[in-house]
Amino acid sequence: MLKPDWIAVDWGTSNMRAWAMSASGSIMDEVRSDKGMGDLTPDQFEGALRDACADWNLTVPIIACGMVGARQGWVEAAYAAVPCPATPNGFTQPDSALDVHIIPGLMQADPADVMRGEETQIAGFLAMNKDWDGVICLPGTHTKWAHISADEVVSFQTYMTGDLFAAIGEHTVLRHSVQTDDWDADAFDAGVTDAMARPERIATRLFSLRAEGLVNNMTNATARARLSGLLIGAELAGAKPYWMGQQIAVIGAGNLTSLYVRALALQSAPATQVKGDAITLAGLTAAYRRLKG
Amino acid sequence: MLKPDWIAVDWGTSNMRAWAMSASGSIMDEVRSDKGMGDLTPDQFEGALRDACADWNLTVPIIACGMVGARQGWVEAAYAAVPCPATPNGFTQPDSALDVHIIPGLMQADPADVMRGEETQIAGFLAMNKDWDGVICLPGTHTKWAHISADEVVSFQTYMTGDLFAAIGEHTVLRHSVQTDDWDADAFDAGVTDAMARPERIATRLFSLRAEGLVNNMTNATARARLSGLLIGAELAGAKPYWMGQQIAVIGAGNLTSLYVRALALQSAPATQVKGDAITLAGLTAAYRRLKG
Repeated sequence: MLKPDWIAVDWGTSNMRAWAMSASGSIMDEVRSDKGMGDLTPDQFEGALRDACADWNLTVPIIACGMVGARQGWVEAAYAAVPCPATPNGFTQPDSALDVHIIPGLMQADPADVMRGEETQIAGFLAMNKDWDGVICLPGTHTKWAHISADEVVSFQTYMTGDLFAAIGEHTVLRHSVQTDDWDADAFDAGVTDAMARPERIATRLFSLRAEGLVNNMTNATARARLSGLLIGAELAGAKPYWMGQQIAVIGAGNLTSLYVRALALQSAPATQVKGDAITLAGLTAAYRRLKG
Repeated sequence: MLKPDWIAVDWGTSNMRAWAMSASGSIMDEVRSDKGMGDLTPDQFEGALRDACADWNLTVPIIACGMVGARQGWVEAAYAAVPCPATPNGFTQPDSALDVHIIPGLMQADPADVMRGEETQIAGFLAMNKDWDGVICLPGTHTKWAHISADEVVSFQTYMTGDLFAAIGEHTVLRHSVQTDDWDADAFDAGVTDAMARPERIATRLFSLRAEGLVNNMTNATARARLSGLLIGAELAGAKPYWMGQQIAVIGAGNLTSLYVRALALQSAPATQVKGDAITLAGLTAAYRRLKG
């Protein structure tokens, strides 16, 4: 049986990852599970963790971030109100035989906003980039923009662009127009530029994608890329006070992150792309060190 | 068996209505059917019409509008390109023993747009309001704005606001926040005003509805009304070149039409609300008169 010094857990809505860690911060082992928060009732989390980490000695501190701390999760972890440090204080412990510490999410009262999980990525990025000021963008179903100054999250803003893309592509009249695995990069760029110039016309530009198919034979690849460009372009128009003239880091892996970097480049706003995996673990490690004092 | 002089048919995606008409334009009988275009293959339309009008002599001209003329309908009726008269020329006849004439839809090449069915409501409104110039708004799943001058549709623009409202309310994270039969009229007004002022922030304002529920206990009634206000407000911001300083008629029955009138009033843009039922039949009657020369 493996005996780590502590255990790091990233527990999201649809899956969970855990790392067996040494005190010095090196990875001894790693497991994944498809038992996400969305599949579990509060009394099932401990068993799911024991099952996933069956080969590890679990009598050590366990640091967890993500939706495990949501109202529907293991136990609701309080939100910390911004402005506050990205490496958060105030862990919440569920009623459990295990020594579990859940990292608080962040909240903002006005405009109302919340994050849960991304704060740990931000903390990890800042742990790896000392004295970094600027804006961090975390693309996803609900993309976050966070203004960072003096190691604090000053404010943040969430755009549900990914959620909108999925709902529009699958549950509106555009479902006939955007189903494809192909992609038209020029159409993406045109969509970004169009939405940046006229964000208020988004709902008519969307219908035009359907009409272009009917009257001008636009392909689904063009329509899909243009839909993505329109939605990300409208987001960049709204988030402009965040990224304009700032140092920008875009955290995440895969195609969506690359699209944000590309769209920002079209605005002459260079952004650094940072892969997300090591970042989350760095944030959990920073939280462990804070727990140990 | 009833012997009309002609038959008027409004055949949409989800249902069909038909009127037995005298030559002078009075209604002799009326039927409804739930056999909409979406439920029928091309060879089933004639049977559906015969079933619905089983008590009528069908050896007379039959004038039809709506999705019956879509590519997936009885037969594809060509689009007429704007600018053109609202009372359209160029009927399309399906291959049928019946004397059916389908009214063309309208299309616009750039920005690409289409309508099918609404053109007949516009024609009906103009038949009942001689020499009317201004802008007609037809709220619905895909709301249309049409600029009318000298009895022609000069241009038009479709906003898929209703389609977005349904997809967002049922298929994004907001499904947890907006399910209710209650309504908060002040929240609707606030949403309209907010989106008119900052339409580019729509995707973050939407997420705020979720966050307001989590951190400020916003009710679902407030969130639902505010969602509606945000989407209609963003539409009014985009369509402003249409309605600004124009005479405005909003055609339709029910709550959605009233919301558009209310949102326009908030912009100091008074609009006349016109019920839709008689309007469609007036448009079909105008088309019949044109067919008879």
